[in-house]
Amino acid sequence: MNYDYLLYLAIILISTKLLGLVTRRAHMPQVVGALAAGLILGPACLDLVHGSVFLNQVSEIGVIVLMFMAGLETDTEELKRSGLASFVIALMGVLLPLAGGFGIAMLCHASSPSLSSSELLQNIFIGIILTATSVSITVETLKEMGKVSTKAGTAILGAAIIDDILGIVALTIVTSLADPSTNIAFVLLKIAGFFLFAILSGILFAFITQKWISFDPKPNRRHIILAFAFCLLMSFCAEHFFGVADITGAYVAGLVLSHSTKREIMYREFDTMSYLLVAPVFFASIGLKVELDSMSGNLLLFTALLLAVAILTKILGCGLGAKAMGYTKRESFQIGIGMISRGEVALIVANKGEALGLLDSSLYAPIVVTVVITTIITPILLKFAFKDKKNSQPNL
Amino acid sequence: MNYDYLLYLAIILISTKLLGLVTRRAHMPQVVGALAAGLILGPACLDLVHGSVFLNQVSEIGVIVLMFMAGLETDTEELKRSGLASFVIALMGVLLPLAGGFGIAMLCHASSPSLSSSELLQNIFIGIILTATSVSITVETLKEMGKVSTKAGTAILGAAIIDDILGIVALTIVTSLADPSTNIAFVLLKIAGFFLFAILSGILFAFITQKWISFDPKPNRRHIILAFAFCLLMSFCAEHFFGVADITGAYVAGLVLSHSTKREIMYREFDTMSYLLVAPVFFASIGLKVELDSMSGNLLLFTALLLAVAILTKILGCGLGAKAMGYTKRESFQIGIGMISRGEVALIVANKGEALGLLDSSLYAPIVVTVVITTIITPILLKFAFKDKKNSQPNL
Repeated sequence: MNYDYLLYLAIILISTKLLGLVTRRAHMPQVVGALAAGLILGPACLDLVHGSVFLNQVSEIGVIVLMFMAGLETDTEELKRSGLASFVIALMGVLLPLAGGFGIAMLCHASSPSLSSSELLQNIFIGIILTATSVSITVETLKEMGKVSTKAGTAILGAAIIDDILGIVALTIVTSLADPSTNIAFVLLKIAGFFLFAILSGILFAFITQKWISFDPKPNRRHIILAFAFCLLMSFCAEHFFGVADITGAYVAGLVLSHSTKREIMYREFDTMSYLLVAPVFFASIGLKVELDSMSGNLLLFTALLLAVAILTKILGCGLGAKAMGYTKRESFQIGIGMISRGEVALIVANKGEALGLLDSSLYAPIVVTVVITTIITPILLKFAFKDKKNSQPNL
Repeated sequence: MNYDYLLYLAIILISTKLLGLVTRRAHMPQVVGALAAGLILGPACLDLVHGSVFLNQVSEIGVIVLMFMAGLETDTEELKRSGLASFVIALMGVLLPLAGGFGIAMLCHASSPSLSSSELLQNIFIGIILTATSVSITVETLKEMGKVSTKAGTAILGAAIIDDILGIVALTIVTSLADPSTNIAFVLLKIAGFFLFAILSGILFAFITQKWISFDPKPNRRHIILAFAFCLLMSFCAEHFFGVADITGAYVAGLVLSHSTKREIMYREFDTMSYLLVAPVFFASIGLKVELDSMSGNLLLFTALLLAVAILTKILGCGLGAKAMGYTKRESFQIGIGMISRGEVALIVANKGEALGLLDSSLYAPIVVTVVITTIITPILLKFAFKDKKNSQPNL
C-alpha cells in the first residue's frame, strides 16, 4: 500500500493555511493564499505534489460542499425584498461579462477560418466563467468601512445572490449542450426536467425532514448526515439522469435546505468538514493544474485581455443596470466596483469546464490570475469609490 | 468522468445512520448498525456498493482520524491516578486474550505439519485483534445505572486506557515484524526509533503550537488544521520511515495533543469530520469486506471459538488481575465483565492486518461477529453483575 496521499494531504493542509494566513495579513482573502500554495506545490514551481484519483475525488466533494453551502446561505427572503433593482443589476452584470468573455475568446480563436459548434461552446464558456461574482471580499471591506447598509451596499448584497443563480442557469445550459450526441430541444427538456425533479424531490425531502425535526427536535447529527446524503444524491442525479452539472445539483440542494430550522447548525458542521479537509484540497488542486511553461506570449496577451474584460464588464454592466434603476451616478459606480471580485465559483466553473472538455487546461493560468487580481483590487477600488467627499484629505 | 462514488457515498451515509438509529433504539451502539449496513450493501447480501480506491483511502483517513481522537481523549492524568492496579488489570486483560486468540488460531491451523514464521505471525495477529477493549458501551451502561464512580467503575476506566496503549504496542511489534526482509533486532530498533522520533517531534510540535496559541489564543481553525496535518505526517512517517503502522502514528499524535489547551474544540471539530464523512465510510467498508459465501463449517466453528475465547479471556484476565490487586471477588467479576466489549479498535486492527497480509479476508466475518456480539452482551451482563443483592427480587 502506498501512503503518499497522507503526506500530500498534510503538505496541502499546511501550505494552504500558512499562505492563507499570509494573504490575510495583507488584507486579501485566504483563497488567494490557498491558490498560491497549489501553484507553488505543483508543476508550475516545485512539482512536489502530484494529482491523483483520490485528490480529484476529494476535491470534487469539496466543490460539491462549497456549492451546497452557497445554496444554504442564499437568503431567499432578501431576494424578495431587494427585488427588481437587484435583478436588473445582476442580469446586466451577467450579460456583459458573458458577452465580453465570449468576445475575446472569439478574437483569440480568429485564426481558424470556420468555427465548429464545440469551439463556439468553448468560447461561450470563457464568458460563463466571468459571470459569477464573489461578494465576500466586498462585504468584508464594506463592513470595515461601515458601509454595508448604504443603498449601494444593500443593492450589492441582493444582486450578488441573483448573480449566483443566473450564473448557475447559464452554466447548466452550456454544460448540458457539451454532450454532442443530443439536440438542443432535448437538452432544454432535460434541464427543465431536472429543475422539476429538483423542486419536487426538494419539497418532499424538506417536508419529511421538517416533520421529523418537529417530532424530535434535539438531535442534529442525523439531520445533517441526511442533508449531506441529499446533496450528494442531487449531485449524482443531476449528472447521471439529466446531464446537468453536479454542482448545479448541490447548489439546488442547498437552496432547498436554506429554509430548514437546522440551517445554521448545518452550515457550521459543513463548514468544519470544508475547511478541515475538502476545501483546501480543492483550492490547491486548482493551483496544481496551472502550468506556467504554457504561458506563451499569446497566452499572456489573452490573460491581460481577460482581466481587463472581467473588470470593465462588471463595472459597466452592474453600473448601467443600477443607473437604469434610478441609483445616482456615484452609487452606480460603487455598485459596479463592488461586483468586480471573482472567487471560488469562477474556479469551480473552470474546473467543471475542463472535466467536460469545454476548457483547455492551459487556460487555468489566465483564470487563476483573473480571480486573484480582481480579488486584490476590489477592496482598494472600493475604498476610493466610497471615500467621503467632504473629508477627502489623506488621513495622516 | 464517473460519478458513482457520489451515489455510493450517499447510500453509505443514509444506511449507516438509519441502521445506527435502529440499533440505538435497541440499546446497542450505533457501530453495530453501521457494520450491518456494510454487510447488507456488500457482497454478503445486496452487492450494491463496490469497494474502490477512493472508498479505501477515505476509509483509511477515517481510521486515522478515529485513532487520533482516541489518543486525544486519553486522560494521562487519570492514568497516573489509577496507577498500578489498573495497569495490572489491563496487562492481564491483554495477555490472556492474546494467548487465547493465538491458541485457537494454532488449533485451527494444526493440519499443517510445520509452521512458517509468517503463519506464526498470522496466528499471533488473531490474538492481537482480541486485546483491545472498547469501553464506551460499558461507560454508557454504568452511567445509566449510576455506577461509574464505584470502585469497579473507576478501575475499568483506568484499565481501558492502559489496555489501548498496550494493544497499540503489541500491534506495532507484530506489524513491524510482518516485513520479511528484516531481522527482529532491526525491527525493534526501528520501533524504538519511531517512539523516540514521536516523542521528540511531539514535544517540539506541542511547544511551538502552545507558544503560538498563547500569543494568539482566539482563532481555532489554524491550530486544528495544523493538528490534523501533524496527525497525517506522523501516520505517514510511521509507515514510511519506521515500518510502524500508520494508526500507531495517529494515536501517538493524539496523545501528544491531549495536553493542548485546544483539546476540546479540536475533538469537536474532528468529531464532525468523522461522523459526517470518514467514519461511516470506514465502518461500512468493514461490512463490505465480509463475504458470507466463505462461511464454511470450519469457519463457523472458528467463529464460535473466537467469540468464546474473546469473552472468557477478558473476564478471566481482568478478573484475576483485579483479584490480585486486592479487589473483592464481586468487584473483580464486575471489572472483567466491563472489559468484554470490543469495538472500533478491533476492526481497525483487523483492517490493518488484512492490508499487511497478516489476516485472511475470510476471517472478517468471525471478527465482525465477535465485535457485534461482545458489544451486545456486555450491557446485559453488566446489569446482572451490578444487581443489588439486598434488592434482588425482580422489578415488576
